[in-house]
Amino acid sequence: ARTLTIGVIEGDGIGPELVASAVEVLDAAVAGVGHRLELVREDGGADTYRRTGEALAPGVLDRARGYDGLLKGPVGLPDVRRPDGTEAGLLGGLLRGGLDTYANVRPMRLLPGVATPTRYAPGDIDYVIVRENTEGLYLSRGVGVRNDRAAVDQLMMTRHGVERVVRHAFDLARTRRGAPVDGVSRVTCVDKSNVLRSFAFFREIFEEVAADYPDVEHDFRYADAAAHDLVASPGHFDVLVMENFLGDILSDLGAATVGGLGMCPSANVGADAAYFEPIHGSAPSLAGRDLANPVSQVLAGALLLDHAGLPAAGDAVRAAVHGAFADGAVRLADGRPEGGTRAVTAAVVERLAAG
Amino acid sequence: ARTLTIGVIEGDGIGPELVASAVEVLDAAVAGVGHRLELVREDGGADTYRRTGEALAPGVLDRARGYDGLLKGPVGLPDVRRPDGTEAGLLGGLLRGGLDTYANVRPMRLLPGVATPTRYAPGDIDYVIVRENTEGLYLSRGVGVRNDRAAVDQLMMTRHGVERVVRHAFDLARTRRGAPVDGVSRVTCVDKSNVLRSFAFFREIFEEVAADYPDVEHDFRYADAAAHDLVASPGHFDVLVMENFLGDILSDLGAATVGGLGMCPSANVGADAAYFEPIHGSAPSLAGRDLANPVSQVLAGALLLDHAGLPAAGDAVRAAVHGAFADGAVRLADGRPEGGTRAVTAAVVERLAAG
Ligand SMILES: CC(C)[C@H](C(=O)O)[C@@H](O)C(=O)O
Ligand SMILES: CC(C)[C@H](C(=O)O)[C@@H](O)C(=O)O
Repeated sequence: ARTLTIGVIEGDGIGPELVASAVEVLDAAVAGVGHRLELVREDGGADTYRRTGEALAPGVLDRARGYDGLLKGPVGLPDVRRPDGTEAGLLGGLLRGGLDTYANVRPMRLLPGVATPTRYAPGDIDYVIVRENTEGLYLSRGVGVRNDRAAVDQLMMTRHGVERVVRHAFDLARTRRGAPVDGVSRVTCVDKSNVLRSFAFFREIFEEVAADYPDVEHDFRYADAAAHDLVASPGHFDVLVMENFLGDILSDLGAATVGGLGMCPSANVGADAAYFEPIHGSAPSLAGRDLANPVSQVLAGALLLDHAGLPAAGDAVRAAVHGAFADGAVRLADGRPEGGTRAVTAAVVERLAAG
Repeated sequence: ARTLTIGVIEGDGIGPELVASAVEVLDAAVAGVGHRLELVREDGGADTYRRTGEALAPGVLDRARGYDGLLKGPVGLPDVRRPDGTEAGLLGGLLRGGLDTYANVRPMRLLPGVATPTRYAPGDIDYVIVRENTEGLYLSRGVGVRNDRAAVDQLMMTRHGVERVVRHAFDLARTRRGAPVDGVSRVTCVDKSNVLRSFAFFREIFEEVAADYPDVEHDFRYADAAAHDLVASPGHFDVLVMENFLGDILSDLGAATVGGLGMCPSANVGADAAYFEPIHGSAPSLAGRDLANPVSQVLAGALLLDHAGLPAAGDAVRAAVHGAFADGAVRLADGRPEGGTRAVTAAVVERLAAG
């Protein structure tokens, strides 16, 4: 039996409740495949920021490389602005840059019984957005120039940066269980290469990498067409790969089609560290009231299990969540679980134990 | 009686059919308010490009400033790539830059009887995206740098550029007929000011301009949240204003929620010239077959009438289109009108004559 060592950043607002839920589920899932879980609490978020002026405690980045994965709840730093108008804190920036987690993996899957603004049914939406996480427009944060009359940010892509994230997308398309409606493994390159050099560069490298994966289909969408098609024909998509800012925008779009951010986990994967979190914020108004939907955090835990080499345990968690929605044990009203956060946890754990 | 002088670029593919339809409708609408229409044919698009190496005939930009408006069909230039991988032609770039049409105005309205992937009803979606059209990330076209190892584009905003487009958005919110679900006139600033200086700069100027319009509400959305909310709660929005690239992406998203690009007109408005076009392409496979949906082009004509100082005629066109959908005279199957392009034209003209 293996011991899985997981770093845990509880986060702020609803973070601690969500993380407690995910940990309970992970515990059951890991036990279910004959292993055990060891948790190491790490500090990060609002408290740490207020105490130290940094959103992450010293040493976390180093220790993270030793964990099988870092599970992170949503954080909510005080809204301190820099002189240039941008936010001062942003733990995401520290972690993504500090751990060089170049692939931000965001699965979008419509579960049974989840109300959405669209007419799609479960099975119609099951794709993964792979967002480049270390360069693109975001790298300009804190670096762009401005005065009172003009402002400039930069969008930078490097061969190394594009290549590794595109490879990640193709590897994922080879191995993942979900599938588009036609069942064909496919990576879609999203860019604006008709207008901008950096995106044309992205597409060129995409095409080079694609040649190494003759068993995986590939195609292309300009960013505007991708935004259209993620609403109009989401069933086409399997894995999509794109620049950082595009990934930020299109993953929130995707979230809206699967019932909201509360359904959406993410993995931030680097060569020697990875962390796993919901894509939403810390919702302070719901905190401590057993009201929040823990599904995003629980599914983030499932991504951690995949990454840690226990994909069967990850699948078991996803199946348990799916089952709890399918048989009506979990129902959402306005995005919140009817019986509360802990009831969702219990329903998922019960199905894990049964399954 | 006034003579309205309109420049006309027919465009490629389905362009000539669409423009013929719009001209017929405009003729009736202008006559309906006691004026007359004079058309001046201008050359632009694929033929011009093949003959001259430029997508626009000489003198068009100068003459455009003398017209009451320029009606343009979709164009489809041969896909010639520059050494950097971007497209060589792009008539849009020539016109937007050449005429300094800084506001790209894209109304999104769900009409009765139009099938969409969402559960919304007519009245739930009726907003306008105002896309900055002369700077932002697009200004980097042909200017960004790249070699084999990296590529950089720039996102530039200027005080002048932001101010004028934000003013346009507030002026539009004051005068336009459509409304969000709560009936409150509102301008939403879409940016990513938490991360990037250029967007923080955009937001600062937005706030300065907003202070001049105390009668119009304003609020803010980060770009990711805007993408989410345009799917999840489109009824909130009235007028949205944003940087060029964001406007490109979010307007295609919006189009998907109102039945596709075939329903979406746009106005490109500058201080001394304006042109009006659908936001879709030239669909060569449908060309010359009386198959295409002319609604985007007809509604582009209505925007031209508004701009030319004949808003009652513009309203009449919109009402006629709305009526033709409402009473089932026009029905779309897979985005194409059941009776063909000309039948749509006839139905709209008939309602104009009746109304
Ligand atoms: C909070 C914000 C800086 C962050 C981002 O834009 O990356 C968030 O939107 C996300 O998607 O993780
Ligand atoms: C064809 C393309 C360059 C253009 C753009 O991106 O501006 C189009 O998508 C549009 O929205 O008008």
